[in-house]
Amino acid sequence: MHGLNENMTKYSHGGDIYRNDIVLDFSVNGNPLGPPDTVLSLFSNTERFLTAYPDPDCVRLRAAIASRDGLSQDMIICTNGAAEFICCLVKAVSPKKGLILTPAFSEYERCLEANNAECTFTSDEGAFLQAIENVDIAFLCNPVNPTGVLLDRSFMDKALKAAEEGDTWLVIDESFLRFLADYESMTLRSVLKYNPKLVVVDSFTKIYAIPGLRLGYGMTADRELKGIIKDMLPMWNVSTIAQAAGIKALEAKHYLEEAIAYLNDERQRLSQLLSGMGFKVTAGTADFLFFESSKELYKPLLSSGILIRDCNNYRGIGASAFHYRIAIRKKEENDRLILLIKKILD
Amino acid sequence: MHGLNENMTKYSHGGDIYRNDIVLDFSVNGNPLGPPDTVLSLFSNTERFLTAYPDPDCVRLRAAIASRDGLSQDMIICTNGAAEFICCLVKAVSPKKGLILTPAFSEYERCLEANNAECTFTSDEGAFLQAIENVDIAFLCNPVNPTGVLLDRSFMDKALKAAEEGDTWLVIDESFLRFLADYESMTLRSVLKYNPKLVVVDSFTKIYAIPGLRLGYGMTADRELKGIIKDMLPMWNVSTIAQAAGIKALEAKHYLEEAIAYLNDERQRLSQLLSGMGFKVTAGTADFLFFESSKELYKPLLSSGILIRDCNNYRGIGASAFHYRIAIRKKEENDRLILLIKKILD
Repeated sequence: MHGLNENMTKYSHGGDIYRNDIVLDFSVNGNPLGPPDTVLSLFSNTERFLTAYPDPDCVRLRAAIASRDGLSQDMIICTNGAAEFICCLVKAVSPKKGLILTPAFSEYERCLEANNAECTFTSDEGAFLQAIENVDIAFLCNPVNPTGVLLDRSFMDKALKAAEEGDTWLVIDESFLRFLADYESMTLRSVLKYNPKLVVVDSFTKIYAIPGLRLGYGMTADRELKGIIKDMLPMWNVSTIAQAAGIKALEAKHYLEEAIAYLNDERQRLSQLLSGMGFKVTAGTADFLFFESSKELYKPLLSSGILIRDCNNYRGIGASAFHYRIAIRKKEENDRLILLIKKILD
Repeated sequence: MHGLNENMTKYSHGGDIYRNDIVLDFSVNGNPLGPPDTVLSLFSNTERFLTAYPDPDCVRLRAAIASRDGLSQDMIICTNGAAEFICCLVKAVSPKKGLILTPAFSEYERCLEANNAECTFTSDEGAFLQAIENVDIAFLCNPVNPTGVLLDRSFMDKALKAAEEGDTWLVIDESFLRFLADYESMTLRSVLKYNPKLVVVDSFTKIYAIPGLRLGYGMTADRELKGIIKDMLPMWNVSTIAQAAGIKALEAKHYLEEAIAYLNDERQRLSQLLSGMGFKVTAGTADFLFFESSKELYKPLLSSGILIRDCNNYRGIGASAFHYRIAIRKKEENDRLILLIKKILD
């Protein structure tokens, strides 16, 4: 009863607007403000982006990221979405055994499986810490996708220690972390240089609302790993447009503060509305909300052209109820969703 | 004396406009007409391309390619440039031994090396045919990059036979083949279904002048290989913009005929001009010309902001002289190049 929707596989993601007739897509998590104006203005003169090959080394983009984050640009590898970084990282490490704290972005598992690695899954932090030393690579997403739950710093520090002791690569996916006001105290990129087994992943997709362009990056202080990943990557892997958009996005000064302020208010408002309707809402921290429902919402919403993320294909999410993730979109769009859900419940 | 320029490595390509102050770039080979108007017009409404995730299966694009080429869309895998296809193909095959007919696009070798395959190189067609059965994967580029020489069909047929007998993957890179008026008689995509060991690679980059967007594809009738390559590819590997541009490019009706007619005239004119100046020009067939020079041209042209492709880092190209590849650009741009070369020779 609470299994997968037809057309959904173990590795299905949200956002399938190509095989559905969709008016509003709540199934993917992009910044509700849309891309920064600085990024949009790039497209007034497009031809130069089309006809020139991209810089294969993304020198200007890496410099811009390094300067914002106080890192050396030698630590940064830019990729065609964070998904490409994860994919090539797993190939580079070529692990026999992998570990994933669940629920999690399903690409970690898909890439481990494509490389014939044996996977261990646990949703228990203590069990995760104990298992780290027995695997070659371990994945964490902070905040967790799809629940939005923030992992606390003391757990992260224990994971770092266990990874160092076990000679295990510890991968922290921070793709949603910049939606937090206290980002600086939570990001692990500041400790990269003290932790050669740490790999931090980040994405422009979510924060700057540009999933269509594909832009992500990974960071490590380990030069050898970085070299192997570079060898595994296709030449010219990041398009000219994505590189230019990334640089422009980093220049957009008040964009993130504005998004964070909006999301904090709207997350609370939506959360209360959903709780008031009887759903069990998880206290999230990112640009989406996760909730449990005893009634199916996916299909009836889809028939109104509204796409939400059915999360019952996430490993570690029980099938005892329906679980959904909705993006926090613009107020009037969120209100439209709430109204439709109310109608379904009636 | 005829070695590599400083800043050039074994795997350097043309087009390094990011570390040079360039006015005109003759080092990369794009269609001199620029992108089709149908592609440029896409960019009047950009936001939808940015904020939506790409279709991970490129369904509409694959259908458009399949319909033009008379193929099943199940045979086609779209990638972030042909380079990504080549990269993931090599990972999927995981060859112990590879074979390359030289000179060739250096990404074949780079990817084989990244996967620890032992490489054999030969510029002799007979030796290539004999070696096929002893390797796991063999690469041909037709026409050859950087010389523009066309491989003849009887050699290709022999290669197909040898690959089948040797159970060897035969990869034909047709990235420049559509610049030929007699394309239909030369392409091997029509025999894919009879040759399960054949893999054909193609690119939108060259033909439609969109290297900045990254769009290529590979074709094979082998379902198992296709499945492994798909597993190796990152999710959402082709951007929304590249998918839309690809579909629009295929709709541009007279664009290719116009480009082919222009190139045939201009290739002949430029070829005669260069021969008249004493260079040994190879009879090419694509949108570039390859020639041998006793005098260095790369550095003096670069100091005038003109970038040409120094080909002495191509394996299989002798160091007994300087070898250059120039893109055939617009008439007035080509004239400017010829004038500057004349000045250097004076």
